[in-house]
Amino acid sequence: MKNAYAVILAGGSGERFWPLSTKARPKQFISLFSGRPLLTLAVERLEGVIPADRIYVITAERLVDDTAAAARNVPRVNIIGEPCKRDTAPAIAVACGLVKKRDPEGVVCILTADQLMSDMQTFQRTLTDSVEIAARNDVIVTMGIQPTYPATGFGYIRAGAPVEGATVTEFYHSEGFVEKPDEDKALEYLNSGRYFWNAGMFIWSTRVMSAALARCAPDLCELCDLIAECEGYDEQSEVLNRSYPALRSISIDYAVMEHVDNIVMARGSFGWDDVGSWPAVAGHFAADMNGNVVIGSCEQMDCSNNIVVSEERLTALIGVRGLVVVHSDNATLICPRDRAEQVKKLIRRIAARPDGEKYV
Amino acid sequence: MKNAYAVILAGGSGERFWPLSTKARPKQFISLFSGRPLLTLAVERLEGVIPADRIYVITAERLVDDTAAAARNVPRVNIIGEPCKRDTAPAIAVACGLVKKRDPEGVVCILTADQLMSDMQTFQRTLTDSVEIAARNDVIVTMGIQPTYPATGFGYIRAGAPVEGATVTEFYHSEGFVEKPDEDKALEYLNSGRYFWNAGMFIWSTRVMSAALARCAPDLCELCDLIAECEGYDEQSEVLNRSYPALRSISIDYAVMEHVDNIVMARGSFGWDDVGSWPAVAGHFAADMNGNVVIGSCEQMDCSNNIVVSEERLTALIGVRGLVVVHSDNATLICPRDRAEQVKKLIRRIAARPDGEKYV
Repeated sequence: MKNAYAVILAGGSGERFWPLSTKARPKQFISLFSGRPLLTLAVERLEGVIPADRIYVITAERLVDDTAAAARNVPRVNIIGEPCKRDTAPAIAVACGLVKKRDPEGVVCILTADQLMSDMQTFQRTLTDSVEIAARNDVIVTMGIQPTYPATGFGYIRAGAPVEGATVTEFYHSEGFVEKPDEDKALEYLNSGRYFWNAGMFIWSTRVMSAALARCAPDLCELCDLIAECEGYDEQSEVLNRSYPALRSISIDYAVMEHVDNIVMARGSFGWDDVGSWPAVAGHFAADMNGNVVIGSCEQMDCSNNIVVSEERLTALIGVRGLVVVHSDNATLICPRDRAEQVKKLIRRIAARPDGEKYV
Repeated sequence: MKNAYAVILAGGSGERFWPLSTKARPKQFISLFSGRPLLTLAVERLEGVIPADRIYVITAERLVDDTAAAARNVPRVNIIGEPCKRDTAPAIAVACGLVKKRDPEGVVCILTADQLMSDMQTFQRTLTDSVEIAARNDVIVTMGIQPTYPATGFGYIRAGAPVEGATVTEFYHSEGFVEKPDEDKALEYLNSGRYFWNAGMFIWSTRVMSAALARCAPDLCELCDLIAECEGYDEQSEVLNRSYPALRSISIDYAVMEHVDNIVMARGSFGWDDVGSWPAVAGHFAADMNGNVVIGSCEQMDCSNNIVVSEERLTALIGVRGLVVVHSDNATLICPRDRAEQVKKLIRRIAARPDGEKYV
């Protein structure tokens, strides 16, 4: 697609998939699916739609090398390292600057690095249609995912009237973003059929982006312009190192989306999965007749509903049920499936150990 | 002690402590206690009582090097490798031959390699007294351990009338060996106060040994004599390689002890522990306030009564109770405490895997 650029946000922390993911090896680097890192899959998903040299990846500075390795054909100069963590809005401002400099008519697809999409063809169709809408109109296109369960872990987009048009993808005028709901609200949203998960994917022209930033976040607009004026990678890095630490940490939802009314939602039905927990990972693998999911080597006797990730060693289980067992090269997690989310709390305790740095 | 020789039987299998122990690294080599292998502790226990050059260790041929390393000061020529597994009676016949050749007046202490004794002083006292009794009388001294619970995993010795004498150790005439009892019988034995665990330790003169073998097991008596006639280690090995395969596999209890009536039991009260299972191992370590025993590195959140052996990696547990978790360098066992014994069955399944040899 002419003028289409992708910017993959690949910051990420290593908490939910500890010990397989760590600070030094966040979720986008784990290779549980198709044997390749999620980031690699995210880049591959754009094949035939956006050429590799028009793909940018924004990550933490310390992860630039690994990111370049996982992002395969993406040119090294397109891998941008953030000197510190500042949430999505600053990263998106940088993305806007990068593309603006290169192509004032550019359309930027803000994408994520650590999610799965089972129907790549539909994803590409949705993306292509979104780019066209964004190129021709003063709108921000956001992807809304049809909920499949009453999730409390995502923000939602309320869909309004359909946008008239001849695309395969359905577009709706957005009636607003809503924050993560409680369980009752989530069920209400699910049943209404009008609420969609906010997947954090936005497609907008640099023109629309600049205007939105200028109005809603002048400091980020300034950063965007500084980046757009840079000559080369080194100058870019200097600007980032100078500007970033002073920025506030703020998401694009809070900084922009909640303050604009020109949002159009593309209905995304491409098997999107945030794979936000070990049980979610297990959902992508076939279970044995006792409900056990094994990635790697495992021998079980009288066991059921366990999730075992054991690629470098043999795990032998007797008489245990509903456990998550995950080994990394130097640590092992064992917990009931329904407590897998508490690993975040555990990580803080591990980090506080004298030798904690080795493990988190 | 003049004329006293020790023969430590160190065959052993690697089943009960899998994955820490394996075929190539049986129980006597695991270093959970005092940081040293059980075999090393067994040798150290003789310090000051039997000089190192009068200690022999009989093990499997494939384990001779590791045995020599763990047995520290014991001369290499005193480490005897059995070409195949044939239970205790043939090994004891060999022991008798070795000592007979060296010292016709020798008293042989048959000892075990993979048990713990917390009161070394009392053990040495008991051993010294037993050697004296065995040197002066035509008896086989066996050590009987005062039971502390109704064990079904040991054979028992029924103690009869006390043996008159001036030793610190109490000796009783044995009224016979009985096999492993069922639970009711075991409780009866415990309450009677007259039954003691057969710990597999025997002290007898080569003269008494030869006579008993000649009467009860002529084939083993022949082996004993062949060994006694050997000149040097190489000839010994040749004899073993030639004779052993044809021998029946039989324990000393069946071969001799059940057929003789000159057995005297030394009452052993030196904190003997067979440490036959992971829960038994845990009993030798201090638990935290939630009953968890950790050997190595472990972080636990809302956990109780777990046994964790994690010396080379960090084990992180959330909300699990009563589990045994043991890591070796290439395998991990997870099971409830009360099913730890089923690991034997599991090992057979693991051995049947295409890559099973790596793990068992």
